[in-house]
Amino acid sequence: MKKANKKVNAAIIIIGNEILSGRTQDVNVEHLSKWLNNLGVKVEEVRVIEDLESSIINTINDVRKKFNYVFTTGGIGPTHDDITSKSIAKAFKLKYDFHREAYDILEKYYKPGEFNEGRKKMAKIPEGASLIYNPSSGAPGFIVENIFCLPGVPSILKSMTDGLKDKIIGGKKILSETISVQTVESEIAKSLEEAQNQFKNVQIGSYPFFRLGKIGVSIVIRSTEKKQIDDCYKQIVSFLKKKEIHIIER
Amino acid sequence: MKKANKKVNAAIIIIGNEILSGRTQDVNVEHLSKWLNNLGVKVEEVRVIEDLESSIINTINDVRKKFNYVFTTGGIGPTHDDITSKSIAKAFKLKYDFHREAYDILEKYYKPGEFNEGRKKMAKIPEGASLIYNPSSGAPGFIVENIFCLPGVPSILKSMTDGLKDKIIGGKKILSETISVQTVESEIAKSLEEAQNQFKNVQIGSYPFFRLGKIGVSIVIRSTEKKQIDDCYKQIVSFLKKKEIHIIER
Repeated sequence: MKKANKKVNAAIIIIGNEILSGRTQDVNVEHLSKWLNNLGVKVEEVRVIEDLESSIINTINDVRKKFNYVFTTGGIGPTHDDITSKSIAKAFKLKYDFHREAYDILEKYYKPGEFNEGRKKMAKIPEGASLIYNPSSGAPGFIVENIFCLPGVPSILKSMTDGLKDKIIGGKKILSETISVQTVESEIAKSLEEAQNQFKNVQIGSYPFFRLGKIGVSIVIRSTEKKQIDDCYKQIVSFLKKKEIHIIER
Repeated sequence: MKKANKKVNAAIIIIGNEILSGRTQDVNVEHLSKWLNNLGVKVEEVRVIEDLESSIINTINDVRKKFNYVFTTGGIGPTHDDITSKSIAKAFKLKYDFHREAYDILEKYYKPGEFNEGRKKMAKIPEGASLIYNPSSGAPGFIVENIFCLPGVPSILKSMTDGLKDKIIGGKKILSETISVQTVESEIAKSLEEAQNQFKNVQIGSYPFFRLGKIGVSIVIRSTEKKQIDDCYKQIVSFLKKKEIHIIER
């Protein structure tokens, strides 16, 4: 895997009415973000959109120019509401038809007589797309230019990302350090801002939490530069000690 | 509360690097979507964006024209990385300054001497915005035109939506029925598509699941029309019986 020196970014597009309605809790963003970060790709936007052809086409044509990589989840199954493949084909003005290799994979995967119409639909993808293999349930995902189309079922999606590593050229990995302290945000806001102003190459995030009845703040320092994180970390620990703020975890 | 007869839609904008990085799992979409649906407002898009002024401004100016309501979560706290209020002010070209009522609320909320600089920052909002009261922790959210800005901490957000009901004019509520069956999607794909083609005013969703080691599918029928749902429901139950597919739950 070659490394790009510049920043490499990605967007995740979750296609699914069931997430928008609040019926189903998305968990794929967490997996994809962490997996991509390990490859040196930063997820900079997530969109959840409807199972609607116009939404998919408009969203894909908007984000594919803005991000190095785009990952879609959902809508590549056998039922009528699975319209991702067809919509991606339309977005790129490509034919949508049976893919020889995908058809062969699925025909072998199912027992004789079980490769029915719905299952055959999963072999239809945009012309010229390359496949993303699926070690869990046969039906492949696919890649068109910088768009990677994955299924919505989390366990199946997870099983497919492993085989994708070689297709992603990442940049520098974003490193992070976390310090959890027993205080409220306003007590440390000024010192954190000073640290942020001093260390321009790190991003300092401040996240309040309520855990086991205790109020606290997690301070997260993110950067591609280990040395910058370490220096910033030292300064934060130093002002916390001066303020006599209890460090819960570091 | 007046009811609009037409469709009323909304977008949710989650402002937070911690969600994008996979560090924190969002749970606000589920709450907001269900709450809004009860008020007759359909969430049609969710975006998760960075704590970055340009991202917030561009996203807000894009979505505020496309949706009746826009809800933002996150970035209205006391620390340097809380830049939602300032960015919304810039998006609308409004002054960003102390809001008299917000200042008074916060001054009363904290003990004498504890209303420090970080906390005072939470009283700065776009000029002319109206407040969203916060029964949990004092600091209010605010409304500018059709943009409703809420905090990111789920328990605080939840405590604030109750008081907002009168500010939302919803349309017809989307109703739904779910049938969970013990089968695989491809077995019912054709019949579901026929039902979808017959009942144009309902949306039929098909969601595979793996539960207690069993494979199944949840069929969800959504519509604003109760009668349409009932008729579609009957047809689906009828073809399931014909196919001798076990209904787990309905």
